[in-house]
Amino acid sequence: MDSLHIFAPATVANVAAGFDILGFALNAPGDEITIRKTDTPGITIHNKTEFASMPLAPEKNTAGVALQAYLQHLGSEHGFEITFLKKIKPGSGIGSSAASSAAAVFGANELLGRPLERKDLVQFAMQGEKLASGSAHADNVAPALMGGFVLVRSYNPLDLVTIPVPENLYASVIHPQIELKTEDSRRVLRKQILLKDAVVQWGNTAGLIAGLFKGDYELIGRSLQDVIIEPIRSLLIPGFESIKTAALQAGALGCSISGSGPSIFTLSTSEATAQTVAKAMQQMCSQQGIESEIHVSPINTQGPRIVQ
Amino acid sequence: MDSLHIFAPATVANVAAGFDILGFALNAPGDEITIRKTDTPGITIHNKTEFASMPLAPEKNTAGVALQAYLQHLGSEHGFEITFLKKIKPGSGIGSSAASSAAAVFGANELLGRPLERKDLVQFAMQGEKLASGSAHADNVAPALMGGFVLVRSYNPLDLVTIPVPENLYASVIHPQIELKTEDSRRVLRKQILLKDAVVQWGNTAGLIAGLFKGDYELIGRSLQDVIIEPIRSLLIPGFESIKTAALQAGALGCSISGSGPSIFTLSTSEATAQTVAKAMQQMCSQQGIESEIHVSPINTQGPRIVQ
Repeated sequence: MDSLHIFAPATVANVAAGFDILGFALNAPGDEITIRKTDTPGITIHNKTEFASMPLAPEKNTAGVALQAYLQHLGSEHGFEITFLKKIKPGSGIGSSAASSAAAVFGANELLGRPLERKDLVQFAMQGEKLASGSAHADNVAPALMGGFVLVRSYNPLDLVTIPVPENLYASVIHPQIELKTEDSRRVLRKQILLKDAVVQWGNTAGLIAGLFKGDYELIGRSLQDVIIEPIRSLLIPGFESIKTAALQAGALGCSISGSGPSIFTLSTSEATAQTVAKAMQQMCSQQGIESEIHVSPINTQGPRIVQ
Repeated sequence: MDSLHIFAPATVANVAAGFDILGFALNAPGDEITIRKTDTPGITIHNKTEFASMPLAPEKNTAGVALQAYLQHLGSEHGFEITFLKKIKPGSGIGSSAASSAAAVFGANELLGRPLERKDLVQFAMQGEKLASGSAHADNVAPALMGGFVLVRSYNPLDLVTIPVPENLYASVIHPQIELKTEDSRRVLRKQILLKDAVVQWGNTAGLIAGLFKGDYELIGRSLQDVIIEPIRSLLIPGFESIKTAALQAGALGCSISGSGPSIFTLSTSEATAQTVAKAMQQMCSQQGIESEIHVSPINTQGPRIVQ
């Protein structure tokens, strides 16, 4: 087989108390590409999505950079042609660039007979993140490639740990239609934090991991707190506090910023609650005069997949 | 029954990346007391240990303060007579005051027909910690009362989470015979830390919790790193780096300061390795011209117990 149609999932990074070290994947939305193996070297990229702004030069395209890093590692002589069919809206904060990189390296790895395991693809997809945001983060690309919740225990060396996904855990994500650049979201953060806040934070990080292992929804909810990043970044998202309050009142276990925003995520224990939560958030966002998109999804445990 | 003989375990707090939020209990050493219920109110304390310095006035004794808080909560009219038989060496950094408080409230709770669960006794034992160190920490008293590894997810409200103990996990503890006051160990810490260090720390906190749930000894070992507290506090412990290196070379999974020191703990996957590690640490300590005591123990999963 020389050509595949690939889906790669959107992802929620940080997950409240897990800044830069934790993320999970969604069943929807996601990126869809076709990827074709060619006999002549070189990467060609086509764009059939609604987003015209995508750079097509491989060295300026996240998927192109990720795929190039992968091929260099293997010493492969093959070329690839990628056609983007569907794209997560760029700048949403739910891993748009990560999904593209994941789709490309996953697809190429399948077409080459799976020389590497999924976990080992993460390092190449991280190169796409470096292009997109200036730093090679793994908290979106790791769950985009591996599915479920993934802990990035360490970056140097890269140490990825899969965390179990409790049954009946649903995410609701709202994407307020405002522009928020990842570099601005990073720039507002303070370089120094209070030790006493850090203690609260790693208590919640540990609580969230324990809650996921135990399948203890109440513990997950109590641990979905971020006392370090959210208080600063939320200032860049108009109406954040009222949207969060609406989500919690509608039954969400917890609520925080997805990645560097502006999307906001929640977790709930049923699809019905997750739908109610999404609508409550959208209504509150609308009251601020801001249009939004909502997504409701179980946690994706599969990562990228071949679309038949 | 009006009188009981109680053992309460020593504990290791912080556990590298879990500063102020994580601790575990040891089978040995520990405190031993007899506790007798009397019909007239008031707490009387006797000292039959080798440590003459223990204050006997209940309001100045950690166990007395903890027991008083417990009795006030219940509105009990009973009095209690406590006799300390064995005591963990004070100032060792393995929860000497916590063991005393735990033994007292556990014993009284048994003699009163167990009106409260163990978890609910922690808040009273914390009052003993407040007397001992100036702040009501739970990372020693919680495992001293509940056994195993206990996560203090939050202090306000108090939220305690039991973490599973993998089989065949052994602790080695070395207590260099130097004086190090808890308040000094607290005072040297910086109030502000770098966000990038905090990210490394909560990656390791999360990794340690995941490793304990998975029973993944290698992950536990990789996660036993403290980039915030240990680099500062270790300066107060002569030869710390060489003792740690000796422990790791002897096969320990990881090594860090126990509580606020000066004791140093390690974890190993067999009793034989834990013994070898303890001896290697003691030899290195001796090379610095410092006497030491060593303890090797499985993780205590029971908490306090009645000695028959």
